[in-house]
Amino acid sequence: MKRSALSELGRRVKAPPISWLMELALSRPQLISLAAGFTDNETLPVSQCRELLNGILSSRKTGQPALQYGSTAGDPGLRQLTAADFSLLDGVPEPHKTHSPERMIITNGSQQMLYMTVEALCDPGDIVLVEDPTYFVFLGILQARGVGSRGVRLEQDGLSIEHLERVLERLKRAGDLGRVKMIYLVTYHQNPTGVTTSFEKKVEILKVLRRYEKAAGHPIYLLEDAAYRELRFRGNDVKSALAVNGRHDRVIYAGTYSKPFATGVRVGFSILPESIFEPVLRLKGNHDFGTSSLLQKLIAQAITSGKYEDHLATLQKRYAHKARVMRHALQEHFPKNVELWEPGGGLYYWARLPTAIKTGAKSKLFQTALAHDVLYVPGELCYADDPTRRKPNHEMRISFGSAKEQDIREGVARLGKVLRELMGQ
Amino acid sequence: MKRSALSELGRRVKAPPISWLMELALSRPQLISLAAGFTDNETLPVSQCRELLNGILSSRKTGQPALQYGSTAGDPGLRQLTAADFSLLDGVPEPHKTHSPERMIITNGSQQMLYMTVEALCDPGDIVLVEDPTYFVFLGILQARGVGSRGVRLEQDGLSIEHLERVLERLKRAGDLGRVKMIYLVTYHQNPTGVTTSFEKKVEILKVLRRYEKAAGHPIYLLEDAAYRELRFRGNDVKSALAVNGRHDRVIYAGTYSKPFATGVRVGFSILPESIFEPVLRLKGNHDFGTSSLLQKLIAQAITSGKYEDHLATLQKRYAHKARVMRHALQEHFPKNVELWEPGGGLYYWARLPTAIKTGAKSKLFQTALAHDVLYVPGELCYADDPTRRKPNHEMRISFGSAKEQDIREGVARLGKVLRELMGQ
Repeated sequence: MKRSALSELGRRVKAPPISWLMELALSRPQLISLAAGFTDNETLPVSQCRELLNGILSSRKTGQPALQYGSTAGDPGLRQLTAADFSLLDGVPEPHKTHSPERMIITNGSQQMLYMTVEALCDPGDIVLVEDPTYFVFLGILQARGVGSRGVRLEQDGLSIEHLERVLERLKRAGDLGRVKMIYLVTYHQNPTGVTTSFEKKVEILKVLRRYEKAAGHPIYLLEDAAYRELRFRGNDVKSALAVNGRHDRVIYAGTYSKPFATGVRVGFSILPESIFEPVLRLKGNHDFGTSSLLQKLIAQAITSGKYEDHLATLQKRYAHKARVMRHALQEHFPKNVELWEPGGGLYYWARLPTAIKTGAKSKLFQTALAHDVLYVPGELCYADDPTRRKPNHEMRISFGSAKEQDIREGVARLGKVLRELMGQ
Repeated sequence: MKRSALSELGRRVKAPPISWLMELALSRPQLISLAAGFTDNETLPVSQCRELLNGILSSRKTGQPALQYGSTAGDPGLRQLTAADFSLLDGVPEPHKTHSPERMIITNGSQQMLYMTVEALCDPGDIVLVEDPTYFVFLGILQARGVGSRGVRLEQDGLSIEHLERVLERLKRAGDLGRVKMIYLVTYHQNPTGVTTSFEKKVEILKVLRRYEKAAGHPIYLLEDAAYRELRFRGNDVKSALAVNGRHDRVIYAGTYSKPFATGVRVGFSILPESIFEPVLRLKGNHDFGTSSLLQKLIAQAITSGKYEDHLATLQKRYAHKARVMRHALQEHFPKNVELWEPGGGLYYWARLPTAIKTGAKSKLFQTALAHDVLYVPGELCYADDPTRRKPNHEMRISFGSAKEQDIREGVARLGKVLRELMGQ
């Protein structure tokens, strides 16, 4: 048989760029990986989950619904609890239509909502605006579906509004605005840079998008990926884009319980505008008609028992500590002309080298680091395939999420040594 | 804003035809639903799951991996166990390349694999052959993606081979064979008819498909949905299409642990041909990068402890009993000229009325049944939108899965009364 039976999607879909990094790490146990986006192992809430599940399954009354199909949108109890906590976090009076459980869908981690949002909004040839740089798995979703992307420069408090306007203006002049369906932002402790978008910028971004909707001929949505929101260890929380006055009907908010509780418990939650709620819910029906009831009951019980909040406090302290360990190591071992972006939460440091020093997989730096048994994520993997600019290739993402303290110190020391040698210091 | 920003998919996707039936049932508590495809509540393995999870979470050594991310393809231990049991079931020596854990992907129920298979193989305008009638949620997936379908007549031991050839021949003559990517079969205790496809027919079907591949210009796959395989209470197991000599590279086998263990624990497993394994795995990565580790460890532990097998035996006895209760009620209350298809497993009876008696949602029968507080699934919902034939509209699916014994008796009695009145008996 000469031809393949694969669909366009089946032909286009690629392995995530990080998968070879992970394979590398698995095949060389002595290697220290500062590349993985995994979460901390030591703090996983093993005994808490045991106790909670024991409770749920101690009677048939609570046990049966946990082991039976539920509704496609998700467990009503969990949606109620989530909406209440979320309203409080965003400082809106409850119950509020902008944070209503009626427009909430529980998913298999927030990842599934990123996927379904693209499905519901984007045809091949459409365009999504993204941060430059951004979360690479999301870029993979776009690429696989034949959806184009344009990068908007990221500053320390979120997108450059000026650059956003320039990008939209250029798309408008080229007659491509009708293809622009949404902007995707990782608004809290961003992957990969650690940047948190300020509320003022959210207001501005939604304002700018609104201005271009007329020329686009349809709504332009903001997909707010808040996967790292709860993993904050410094500074204040920032309200979500749902709290921007009068614009909640343009915001898809994707949150998760996986990272702040346990990544093996894949439960995310999303709030969607009325205009796209039904189509996305139906897609969820086609995908799997609902996330596991058992996992949803576990999270609901964690919340009502207070164990979720307790655990979150532990986790925040833990990541604060690991970030501190990494900061000290970076200060000690990295050359002074490496620009470090200091995260207030999340799992990542972002390092910008002098532009002459390449960080890509084929670079001397990456290969030498590998020879010294240390791994990072090359920054270029986090940039969209945007035909209007070249991808920067002098940055790196370094994670303190899963590595042990000793490995953070040792890994950064190795990386620093390689860097100093390469930079002649 | 005049236009919507939805994609083709977002615009096409519909609520499953059964959702209004379920809403109806929820809004009228006195209503007896013989429509739901839910599983039996009384037998859900509550204490077993409690004990198993207690074990897994009793030490950090086994607890941590259950609460951390795993690999996208699924837990290696669960894949190994599944491959071993599955090989045994299909009577192939283990380890065997046709049933290898290397080509297995663990999914969120088997539903997710149905979805991803269509994603990987079908573009809008492509054609999938299905049983006439078939599982309506699968029809919804095809419809949403703009994929056409052709129904092939179902007999008591599987597809009519003669009709299959006729359908393919017609597609060939029309020059449409290049769009035919696969055939979808629910091979065990089919939803909705209860039919189990014989092994001989599987051999024949794969032979016929092979003959048309040259003209199609690409492989034509068989997606074998084995969701009900383990829910057998009569007769012998039938080997899967993977066991058909030399044709395993055309078979996608989608199995599940949800129905035979607990539907709230959404864990399915699939074996895929090498030619499409990688694309589907990458899609899974984009969807959710892996099914919950906790659920996978739970199933793995259920298998190794023997609790899975014990529970399955209980379940088989339970459904055998409920089917018997339904059979007796049908014999007592249904008119004699209603043709009943006797299932050897699964959750459904299929009833064929004289063709003059319509069963659709707008029919007098359906409305009268509703007025008498009993619900069934109209047969027409289970037929593909095949432009080459009219949908039969004189059949019904009646489920003994979730209804209590008393409700099965009472529901069938009510339905029988309505039928007898309508048929003037």
